[in-house]
Amino acid sequence: VLILGISGSPRKGANTDFCVQEALKTARAEGAETEFISLAGLNVAPCSACDICEEIDQCSIDDDMGRIYPLLDKCAGLIVGSPVYMVGLTAQLKAFMDRSVLEKRNGFRMSNKPGGAIAVAARRNGGLEITIQEIHAWMLDQDMLVVGDGPPYSHMGGTVVAYKPGEAEGDDWGLETVRGVGRRVATVARLLGAKYK
Amino acid sequence: VLILGISGSPRKGANTDFCVQEALKTARAEGAETEFISLAGLNVAPCSACDICEEIDQCSIDDDMGRIYPLLDKCAGLIVGSPVYMVGLTAQLKAFMDRSVLEKRNGFRMSNKPGGAIAVAARRNGGLEITIQEIHAWMLDQDMLVVGDGPPYSHMGGTVVAYKPGEAEGDDWGLETVRGVGRRVATVARLLGAKYK
Amino acid sequence: VLILGISGSPRKGANTDFCVQEALKTARAEGAETEFISLAGLNVAPCSACDICEEIDQCSIDDDMGRIYPLLDKCAGLIVGSPVYMVGLTAQLKAFMDRSVLEKRNGFRMSNKPGGAIAVAARRNGGLEITIQEIHAWMLDQDMLVVGDGPPYSHMGGTVVAYKPGEAEGDDWGLETVRGVGRRVATVARLLGAKYK
Amino acid sequence: VLILGISGSPRKGANTDFCVQEALKTARAEGAETEFISLAGLNVAPCSACDICEEIDQCSIDDDMGRIYPLLDKCAGLIVGSPVYMVGLTAQLKAFMDRSVLEKRNGFRMSNKPGGAIAVAARRNGGLEITIQEIHAWMLDQDMLVVGDGPPYSHMGGTVVAYKPGEAEGDDWGLETVRGVGRRVATVARLLGAKYK
Repeated sequence: VLILGISGSPRKGANTDFCVQEALKTARAEGAETEFISLAGLNVAPCSACDICEEIDQCSIDDDMGRIYPLLDKCAGLIVGSPVYMVGLTAQLKAFMDRSVLEKRNGFRMSNKPGGAIAVAARRNGGLEITIQEIHAWMLDQDMLVVGDGPPYSHMGGTVVAYKPGEAEGDDWGLETVRGVGRRVATVARLLGAKYK
Repeated sequence: VLILGISGSPRKGANTDFCVQEALKTARAEGAETEFISLAGLNVAPCSACDICEEIDQCSIDDDMGRIYPLLDKCAGLIVGSPVYMVGLTAQLKAFMDRSVLEKRNGFRMSNKPGGAIAVAARRNGGLEITIQEIHAWMLDQDMLVVGDGPPYSHMGGTVVAYKPGEAEGDDWGLETVRGVGRRVATVARLLGAKYK
Repeated sequence: VLILGISGSPRKGANTDFCVQEALKTARAEGAETEFISLAGLNVAPCSACDICEEIDQCSIDDDMGRIYPLLDKCAGLIVGSPVYMVGLTAQLKAFMDRSVLEKRNGFRMSNKPGGAIAVAARRNGGLEITIQEIHAWMLDQDMLVVGDGPPYSHMGGTVVAYKPGEAEGDDWGLETVRGVGRRVATVARLLGAKYK
Repeated sequence: VLILGISGSPRKGANTDFCVQEALKTARAEGAETEFISLAGLNVAPCSACDICEEIDQCSIDDDMGRIYPLLDKCAGLIVGSPVYMVGLTAQLKAFMDRSVLEKRNGFRMSNKPGGAIAVAARRNGGLEITIQEIHAWMLDQDMLVVGDGPPYSHMGGTVVAYKPGEAEGDDWGLETVRGVGRRVATVARLLGAKYK
């Protein structure tokens, strides 16, 4: 069971990368294998709406997204994290999401895979929940199974308050919700695993 | 595998009841057993925030919700439908949701159960998606697995445009999304079934 | 310029009542008159979908909502607060909202009035933003002008973390956002005031 | 009174451009001057989170966004439209939004300006309302006044169903909501106009 984690931050190794990796650590503790992708430093252009992927199983844009498609196919569960920019996900993450239309149009390849979301913001209620909602909407478009952060709180997903590098490590409550997302995605992937494949 | 359907309309036998039952029909075609509850005519008071259910596994209010708790416990999947009132779910449905806190506080009894949502509105974009989002937020609070309407469209859930009694039957596209929700909830419940119990 | 504040908590005088009143205090500092309604203790039944208000400017249900309609008509701005129940607004507040359809159907009497939202939850990210979104959706249905909490943070609205009675008073950051909502609603009401009437 | 319209579609002159321009046409009928920007063909990179704009009133990225900032400053109202991609706004539009942080950090220059949203999707309930919600969240972050589509429907904003070029012109109901957004933004801008400046 492979759980893929994707961070939509333009800052390599910063708080969102840290949080997604923290969730993956918990997924590993549940017996999953994990892989991590930071969009920082990658070149993933927005979808140009050429619609070629409606006809052939291929994207007309040749960039780093080409390395991500196979991982989306292969994973059994997905964790997506974003810093909150202007009360929402980053444009970088949305570019990834829009380009992932290939997966949907060519056999709904993300179907039935559990997905959980993580958001990191400078302020407590500056868009954390709304960013998670946006990620969930995409997951439903991909026919995935959306999970939250599970007990003991069980809300929308992982929500961390952090701004300067390293601050995420100090948000204990937030990190518990982040780990909850890792646990939920790994658990559901495992429950579905044998039957689904 | 029992799939429970709940309609939050105050109108007995009207469009929302019809749509939830239509989704249950599809669930049965997938091999599930089903049960249907219309909140219309039932007496389900809002939560009074007495917090007794934090201490004992019981609600201090004695009304028709007492008949619904055992079905929530028993079901393996849940379909919730609401007419759209003022760009959101009905107060009647929210009363049910708020009272369901008992399930969460006493062992997260809805955990891992797939849930899907249906909304019915007089107008195409008068709050259908937002109502579904509200139902999903509650499902995540209950630690459920949220599913959409699945292929071929795969969006948020079942969305039907209907106002006068019987109009739902004429919304072919909408009914396809409704049936998609029934199919998704039943499929995921079955996939999880053997392992989960 | 009259600013009306409505609290959707079933707990009289508790944290949500306090927060809405705190926002009204700021509105008064901006020169507005204010009025406060706590739904706690009031009897406001859910809308029964009788649709009589489509024909005559009257609701078929005779309860405390009858005292609220004139205040909705009279106010120049509105502040609505809710505790967060199951990641959303309370059923009690939604009953008020659904019944307010009378205002919409009889001349859009809330048109152009600024509205802001406040949410109070036991936990930092347990639905505060989503509850505010739900209140905003209703405000747009009423053709109101939606405002947030304004500078210095400027996000969705007032978000306070409090559970036990009195805890709201200790959430300094949250109370700043609450006061921001009061300031915004009063300011915009005043800006529109002279011209609009 | 200048109303600015921004289309976030990568397709120049297609349905979303058409709809935003249709809203601007209505704004002109209300006496406003208008300006239209299509992001199609423009080069607006995502925010790189360099945070230079926290220190000086300038963005470190030199691209077409430089031509948009002065229009944001100058306009008295804003209409933002997006095609729906994967149940949300486009990455192209989000790049514009993220870069607009300059306006917020340097004096909240969008404060008190009315804003309305338009979404265009291939399917009736494939994310139109959610896309509008996302645009609204950004507007509140900018301390703007959010308006819907106003009477006679008064919901979240302009919602058009169209896929192939030209199809938007055939969605009469949708275009009414689009025109409603134009009317609302222009009306509120005019009401505020004299006082605000």
